[in-house]
Amino acid sequence: MTVATTRDRIVEAADALFYQRGFEKTSFAGIADAVGLSRGNFYYHFKTKDEILDAVIALRAARTQAMLDEWTALAPTPLDRLRCFAEMLIHNREAIQHHGCPVGTLCAELAKSAHPASGNAAMIFGQFRDWLREQFEALGHAGDADALAMHLLSRSQGIAALANAFHDEAFIRHEVERIDAWLASLAPKPTATRARRAKNTHS
Amino acid sequence: MTVATTRDRIVEAADALFYQRGFEKTSFAGIADAVGLSRGNFYYHFKTKDEILDAVIALRAARTQAMLDEWTALAPTPLDRLRCFAEMLIHNREAIQHHGCPVGTLCAELAKSAHPASGNAAMIFGQFRDWLREQFEALGHAGDADALAMHLLSRSQGIAALANAFHDEAFIRHEVERIDAWLASLAPKPTATRARRAKNTHS
Repeated sequence: MTVATTRDRIVEAADALFYQRGFEKTSFAGIADAVGLSRGNFYYHFKTKDEILDAVIALRAARTQAMLDEWTALAPTPLDRLRCFAEMLIHNREAIQHHGCPVGTLCAELAKSAHPASGNAAMIFGQFRDWLREQFEALGHAGDADALAMHLLSRSQGIAALANAFHDEAFIRHEVERIDAWLASLAPKPTATRARRAKNTHS
Repeated sequence: MTVATTRDRIVEAADALFYQRGFEKTSFAGIADAVGLSRGNFYYHFKTKDEILDAVIALRAARTQAMLDEWTALAPTPLDRLRCFAEMLIHNREAIQHHGCPVGTLCAELAKSAHPASGNAAMIFGQFRDWLREQFEALGHAGDADALAMHLLSRSQGIAALANAFHDEAFIRHEVERIDAWLASLAPKPTATRARRAKNTHS
């Protein structure tokens, strides 16, 4: 096992514990135990919990970017890409019901303690916001793309918060359907000319 | 100063600290310091932080009910009452930008630690949900009143989460306008007969 791999294992374990238990509630010793490392080996990699937090935020930012890049590559249209974002709530429904949204809950916790990493954690919201804005621009809503991006992001946050409080999977599915309908209403409609032409072709 | 008043002051101080710093981050000693009490006097009222948490949740539940009763009494129509709920985000915009929603952030924190009081904290969401459902029923949406209540509650949660992450007051105002427009679209329309009658009256 290389030094890099041990560090990665620490960050992976901390990522999971911060999500499942919260940052404040997770101890330095708890992370070391989860990875099965001696204190000496652990301190070689990280001196403070704040250093681990920085590494966890960097890991989450990298994973977020990889996910957004994948959606961009695999979904053919802006509408499909926006739906990938909404579908994320369904894919992650089990974890969300147990622990909420990893980004939202970490941001909320760090904001309360006015933690120096608070702004970095919020930058992951910024990654989603920028990507969503691009999709709304491509969908033909350049004028209010940022407002639409913030609206969709906030709806996803609200769904995660209530699904977590009520442990309600049907609620998640119902709200994602509602988002899909809203997104469809924003998609460009065939023009009257195109519609006529289509009709003529069929007749 | 009576015994009851000292207890109330402890609960008030804990309520503020749990909101501003988080439950886990707030120590027993920190609450005693905020109230300016000796340990002996403090322990007379509360033996554990969990006992204080129960009292804080009871206080918040009582205040929530008083606020809902006030909205019911003062706002003349179901639409006005639903708007009172949305306006709450604007009234509390400073605190929300700094600390998020008090209900949502406490629920999220307690859910992560699987705290026994987690369900009680979520019951405050339940108070809002029940009251919102009644308003949507009165607005003529008996069939999907609960889904509409959950939708509005989740939108308010999402707005609080992002306003907290981005410290963005304009975003709060923009989203509340969007909610107002959505609520207006759900309000009963004058029927065609009524509209014709109104026209005849004016002509």
